[in-house]
Amino acid sequence: MQFHEIDTPALLIDLARMEQNISQMADFARQKGVDLRPHTKTHKCPEIAKMQVTAGAVGITCAKISEAETMAAEGLNDILIANEIIGTKKINHLIELAKKVRLCLAVDSEFGAKSLNQALEQADQTLEVVIEINCGQNRAGVLPGGPAHELARIIADCSHLKLRGLMTHGGHSYNEISKEGIEEVGIHEGTVMVQTANLLRQNGISAKTVSTGSTPTAYYCGAVEGVTEIRPGTYVFYDLTQTELFACSPQDCALSVLATVTSIPAADRVIVDAGKKAMTSDPRGRAGQNGGFGYIPEKDVTISKLSEEHGVIETDSKFEIGEKVRIIPNHACVVVNMFDEMHGIRNGQVEKVFRIEGRGKML
Amino acid sequence: MQFHEIDTPALLIDLARMEQNISQMADFARQKGVDLRPHTKTHKCPEIAKMQVTAGAVGITCAKISEAETMAAEGLNDILIANEIIGTKKINHLIELAKKVRLCLAVDSEFGAKSLNQALEQADQTLEVVIEINCGQNRAGVLPGGPAHELARIIADCSHLKLRGLMTHGGHSYNEISKEGIEEVGIHEGTVMVQTANLLRQNGISAKTVSTGSTPTAYYCGAVEGVTEIRPGTYVFYDLTQTELFACSPQDCALSVLATVTSIPAADRVIVDAGKKAMTSDPRGRAGQNGGFGYIPEKDVTISKLSEEHGVIETDSKFEIGEKVRIIPNHACVVVNMFDEMHGIRNGQVEKVFRIEGRGKML
Repeated sequence: MQFHEIDTPALLIDLARMEQNISQMADFARQKGVDLRPHTKTHKCPEIAKMQVTAGAVGITCAKISEAETMAAEGLNDILIANEIIGTKKINHLIELAKKVRLCLAVDSEFGAKSLNQALEQADQTLEVVIEINCGQNRAGVLPGGPAHELARIIADCSHLKLRGLMTHGGHSYNEISKEGIEEVGIHEGTVMVQTANLLRQNGISAKTVSTGSTPTAYYCGAVEGVTEIRPGTYVFYDLTQTELFACSPQDCALSVLATVTSIPAADRVIVDAGKKAMTSDPRGRAGQNGGFGYIPEKDVTISKLSEEHGVIETDSKFEIGEKVRIIPNHACVVVNMFDEMHGIRNGQVEKVFRIEGRGKML
Repeated sequence: MQFHEIDTPALLIDLARMEQNISQMADFARQKGVDLRPHTKTHKCPEIAKMQVTAGAVGITCAKISEAETMAAEGLNDILIANEIIGTKKINHLIELAKKVRLCLAVDSEFGAKSLNQALEQADQTLEVVIEINCGQNRAGVLPGGPAHELARIIADCSHLKLRGLMTHGGHSYNEISKEGIEEVGIHEGTVMVQTANLLRQNGISAKTVSTGSTPTAYYCGAVEGVTEIRPGTYVFYDLTQTELFACSPQDCALSVLATVTSIPAADRVIVDAGKKAMTSDPRGRAGQNGGFGYIPEKDVTISKLSEEHGVIETDSKFEIGEKVRIIPNHACVVVNMFDEMHGIRNGQVEKVFRIEGRGKML
């Protein structure tokens, strides 16, 4: 089937571009001698995770236990959950999953460490953990240096936890407006983590893994001596935001939303059938910018406004009702999360349909 | 099960409030002698649609053919698709569905009318349509007066289309900052529609149905003499945006997201496990406001920031890791669309789990 025969709205993946994106990041990791553990939040698709592992990733990163279970069920067997997991039910799922695959969990509090340890003790099982460090994003995570060392000592006293090392996410790079600013965040992200890992080691605490790296910062923190792992996610598809963060060119974007023009109610207004429930409301690039809600390269126009089911394009460019257009989204990860499947396209033909198995895995 | 035993993030419905919301709007429609045809985009749940019909709705409104099919499969049998449907595959679905239920479709172009008529002719079937009017929102729809009359004449010449009347959506009420401004939009919405319907009638074209009304405007346009139908959607749950549009009080909001505090990394920062993939990025109230991403009434705090899996609350209010909180979302319709089910709560107990059958029905 040709891609324009797909009913809309629908997700398309340019397979050649995705394959290139996957191999470029794997090549970088190989060159720098760091492990690549891609975050699967972007695609939520075990098949694509396997492509990343085949290309050289050591394992994968997930955000939730339910996503990790979905990935494990399809054969992924080395999973880092790069988030705190709180609550008895979820911890019981962790314990069950850890019997089947190599699993590691982020911890950033005494409460988190001790409640996990207690559950593991009852189950007579151990689990690897990493300490989440706040390297400047000011989201979750303990501060580097002293606070990280303090939590490491608490974990060392937990009989059923095994400290694998440290992880961070330099998400504040998304606020930077220059390539140099992002480079600076990335280098700082790596440096502060290596320093903290060394502090732990000087105090007799093992910290083998030093895990860093979002898509915009991976090339910078991954090059810092002493960093052992990078965890970019969005690079698999890239998106408009990543082009503005200097992580890719528009032609590297592998994901698009196929939409149909359903109405041309005025000479300067075109309506497509992809609204918030397909494109999401995520803004483009840095917070505060108003860069529209997706870009149609073939027409050089931007979606001006979205309502739930309507995309509004304010333009006097030529469109026809019934015409299909491909829209590069602002933020790939949240757009994929709206759909149940993605159509892999090569040379205009649908080569493969990917099920987004992780969609709806909320817990 | 008590509601706080539900694993998070999860959707809760306060059943008593939802029932009250459903009956209040039905009572209003009865009093004014207009038909209530609620838009099911908010809940995407056939069971709740049936509750609305039981309370007095004449039928339902859907945005898409796939949603209409889902509703019809569960016994809803009078459906208006309040959107343009373009493309052969979807039109074939329309034709099949119209064999089973009373179905009506919005049309706003000669292309839309003629392509639909041609397909119906081949299938030897007729279909009711309404003309979508742009009463000021400037999205889809033809302008009232002359342009609407022109399209009505084209439809009258389509052998297999039967014109039921007119529909509009006064969505520009969402930009108004005063109750008077919303009332004005609502009254104008109703008035312009009645005038256009009368213009058609004066020209010998039947226009029985004059369908108007969003949640903020329904009480105003529904009271305009000559309006025959209102189609509010969000009223079933209400949300923070509706409180700012004077459509409800905070205590009328029936939908909330249950979340768990997973980290308290600083004295003035609390992290919950509901991010963009649960709450969506939809802003609160009118465009341009920064009112946060959801409100926790019990704590009187607002979610400051969201990333995909994290809600960040910048507060020095007291929270504990592991604590569960209920968050009223900015925009109910898009939040429901993120989940597969909703937990109906009464007196703190889970009384019923509703499947969101329409989620993922993209086409």
